[in-house]
Amino acid sequence: MTGTPLRAALLDLEGTLYANERVIEGAAAAIGALREQGVALRFLTNTDSRTTAQIHARLTGYGLPVRPEELFTPVVAARHLLTAPGVRTYALVSRALRDGVPGLVSEPPYTHVLIGDCRDVLDYPALDGAFRAVREGAELLALQRGRYFKRADGDHLDTGAVVAAVEYAAGTTARVLGKPAVDFFALAVRSLGVSAEECLVVGDDASTDVAGGNAAGLRTVQVRTGKYADQHAEGLTGSATHTCDSIAELPDLIAKLGER
Amino acid sequence: MTGTPLRAALLDLEGTLYANERVIEGAAAAIGALREQGVALRFLTNTDSRTTAQIHARLTGYGLPVRPEELFTPVVAARHLLTAPGVRTYALVSRALRDGVPGLVSEPPYTHVLIGDCRDVLDYPALDGAFRAVREGAELLALQRGRYFKRADGDHLDTGAVVAAVEYAAGTTARVLGKPAVDFFALAVRSLGVSAEECLVVGDDASTDVAGGNAAGLRTVQVRTGKYADQHAEGLTGSATHTCDSIAELPDLIAKLGER
Repeated sequence: MTGTPLRAALLDLEGTLYANERVIEGAAAAIGALREQGVALRFLTNTDSRTTAQIHARLTGYGLPVRPEELFTPVVAARHLLTAPGVRTYALVSRALRDGVPGLVSEPPYTHVLIGDCRDVLDYPALDGAFRAVREGAELLALQRGRYFKRADGDHLDTGAVVAAVEYAAGTTARVLGKPAVDFFALAVRSLGVSAEECLVVGDDASTDVAGGNAAGLRTVQVRTGKYADQHAEGLTGSATHTCDSIAELPDLIAKLGER
Repeated sequence: MTGTPLRAALLDLEGTLYANERVIEGAAAAIGALREQGVALRFLTNTDSRTTAQIHARLTGYGLPVRPEELFTPVVAARHLLTAPGVRTYALVSRALRDGVPGLVSEPPYTHVLIGDCRDVLDYPALDGAFRAVREGAELLALQRGRYFKRADGDHLDTGAVVAAVEYAAGTTARVLGKPAVDFFALAVRSLGVSAEECLVVGDDASTDVAGGNAAGLRTVQVRTGKYADQHAEGLTGSATHTCDSIAELPDLIAKLGER
């Protein structure tokens, strides 16, 4: 595999490009250098509580030269999956996310049920509607399946709990669209028009980024920022193809791999 | 155990006193005969979508001489458990059920979270509130954990799915208050002021009534009405202490047991 030239990279956001509300030193310059090397980019995140416009605004705020169409989120993956003839989607997602969901219809039969952040619309009829659609044969898709998220006032129930409710009632298991799903990486690679052998995954999380990327047949780069120190102490790291101190070293790594 | 005189009986409702919207022949007379024999009664059901007043009205409509205070439901069991000093309850239940819940407070800390039928009040803040209370140490109680219930227009998501959502987020398992929980039978027996050896459980369901009653250390009577035929065909029956064709035979069975 090492002999195949690299043409693309999938970059994680939190912990890789920024951490603790601050940009990682050299991240903006690294993105610029990768573009000069001709490496096509996708920026991957599992967030389902912000639209791609909101995520893009945040990255721009950090001074990172990211283009909106380079963002790849579970919502973008859902758009790829649901843009097909005959798709009839039941969406249990927030009003902000709903506009971007393809195939939305308001009457059965449904072919897919999509569950994501739905804090502003959740009620019994909405949850029961998701169950009934799955019960009648629709495939259950989850933007993510986190248990809870953290805020200044403590932990709050996350999307995974709503997914678990429908799974329990329908006796089924959702297909999760975000990392570390192999599908998610495969869809991101496909959106770049390259093959898996030509693409790197770069991230700080040994399970979602590295193990997920490895399972999808991609070469992986572990950066020693973000969660790395904690996960290294827990013995979770060590399975990446390559390791860098931070994203700042990535252009050099790619240049060296090209020389072999 | 057979030598201990019988002083009480816990009678199942659906499938035992009535089935398919019709009263079981001889059920009303049997209840009258049991009273004449001095057998104290509790009528047990797992329903969490109707108040005891509604259940009582239904039984009276079938001509069954049942007193409201003889009904024993998960809501009644919850009342027994939550009527204690220091209890601070967070209830995720319908408005109709809410009035009967003891220890209700609107601010943390909570000692118990009670989840039941909550179709008319479910939204994200209510669900998140239940999660946060459990996360901070409250015990999670479930009136029941059914996956779905049937209506003329098809299946609908039931209480168990809401319980599953909070369990998933909090990483815990709820204590279920209805049959076949040993606690439920024990609380019903205690409410009669008798010992387990003096009490029979009578029902059509081999798992909830018979296996549950056996596990609680009670003598059990399987009636051959309601679910019996289906469960017998599936090989699920056969573990009851005694068997009757229907509730109509119960007074005779109890008389014979008393003669031994």
